[in-house]
Amino acid sequence: MTSLRFTSRTTSDGVVERDFTVGEVPGVLWSPAAGPDHAPVVLMGHGGGLHKKTPAQRARAVDTVTRWGFHVVAIDAPGHGERPLSAEDEQVRDEFKQAMKTGDIERFRKVSVGYALSLAERAVPEWQRTLDAVQELPEIGTEAPIGYGGGISLGTAIGIPLVAADSRISAAIFGGGFFAYEEELAAARHITVPVLFLLPWDDQYVDRQDGLELFDAFASKEKTLHANPGDHRTIRWHGVDDGFLARHLG
Amino acid sequence: MTSLRFTSRTTSDGVVERDFTVGEVPGVLWSPAAGPDHAPVVLMGHGGGLHKKTPAQRARAVDTVTRWGFHVVAIDAPGHGERPLSAEDEQVRDEFKQAMKTGDIERFRKVSVGYALSLAERAVPEWQRTLDAVQELPEIGTEAPIGYGGGISLGTAIGIPLVAADSRISAAIFGGGFFAYEEELAAARHITVPVLFLLPWDDQYVDRQDGLELFDAFASKEKTLHANPGDHRTIRWHGVDDGFLARHLG
Repeated sequence: MTSLRFTSRTTSDGVVERDFTVGEVPGVLWSPAAGPDHAPVVLMGHGGGLHKKTPAQRARAVDTVTRWGFHVVAIDAPGHGERPLSAEDEQVRDEFKQAMKTGDIERFRKVSVGYALSLAERAVPEWQRTLDAVQELPEIGTEAPIGYGGGISLGTAIGIPLVAADSRISAAIFGGGFFAYEEELAAARHITVPVLFLLPWDDQYVDRQDGLELFDAFASKEKTLHANPGDHRTIRWHGVDDGFLARHLG
Repeated sequence: MTSLRFTSRTTSDGVVERDFTVGEVPGVLWSPAAGPDHAPVVLMGHGGGLHKKTPAQRARAVDTVTRWGFHVVAIDAPGHGERPLSAEDEQVRDEFKQAMKTGDIERFRKVSVGYALSLAERAVPEWQRTLDAVQELPEIGTEAPIGYGGGISLGTAIGIPLVAADSRISAAIFGGGFFAYEEELAAARHITVPVLFLLPWDDQYVDRQDGLELFDAFASKEKTLHANPGDHRTIRWHGVDDGFLARHLG
């Protein structure tokens, strides 16, 4: 197995931020500067076109560390952040932009779903290797409860097959703003851990029905749909259950 | 105007419970035993077939008084609780039971909606007269912010036209579990105050789409849809934003 290699470390306001690599995958681990061993770990997926350390993602991570004393891990998805674009990814992105420009919704949907599937196929084992390596750290170990705190769109397209595949993860936050497709619905039907699902009510590209169908598919006895007005760029979340992961992991 | 006439008063664990009548309408006012004047007031509607003082309703009211220091008012809907059934109500209830027994969904829908409309037509002015009378109390007055904390089904069928009609109410909790009908959708389109909408995801009688359509109709810039699995008898709410009214009234 591939170990976690730390490449930098900074501390600010009681939060330690350590960059790392696991193989060729770059990541970041935010931890409380002081606290008990085996605190819960949140795997934080990022949205499409974004990366592991956007200001919003870092703010969410720092808040999770500060409020709950949890660790937060994020990695760049393939072709995102510090990672090179493969020739295939470049081609897909071009197709994607063209479909958007021409307003060809069916083509846009097909290209988006194909791209998400290809990214998830690579990202799920990357997340699992990252989690293996994180569990090697003595302050975390295999006793620490694990949750997934995904963003909407890509963070969910990767997170759903990850949570379905990895029984170490015992609670998950997902979101809408992306197409529902057969492979994702099938994975969702295998998920039984508590789920909080955030839906932008007025997505500009994706029909609301796709998000509702995805939420409906989770086999979880405890699941919550939380929707607010806005599309996935303009949305402002209100009154989200911010104790969700703490209740299930803490 | 009709004043509020108190008929009993008990105090328990810092909560004063006072029964009252306003005209022929019986109600109850829960208040903090001590606290500043002009604390916010929550109008708490009850569900169909229930009444102002069910154990669940009282528990919610006591929690609201204890946690936030608010007043809570509840009244019996026409033909509910201590109130007599009119001949018309009895007839409608018989039709209602028959439609349920025969499984005639269209008839069940038509009778339910007709009954809800008739109840709301009477209950809205009763709520407004009750609020007028409550505002006469010196410890409340016209300065206290007012919210509506309705139950699902009937509490919402009455609450939506009430909140649409009464500009004193500045935030509202509604719920699904009932049919969406034109008069209700039209009233919802006039509501602009913050709304928290609770939807049982698996109602046994009412299509999920009715709840989604109703949520969609609110003109409020800030509105939240919160759905959990279960029908409107078996539902267990998880992670509901219990600071919603406190944020908007406090």
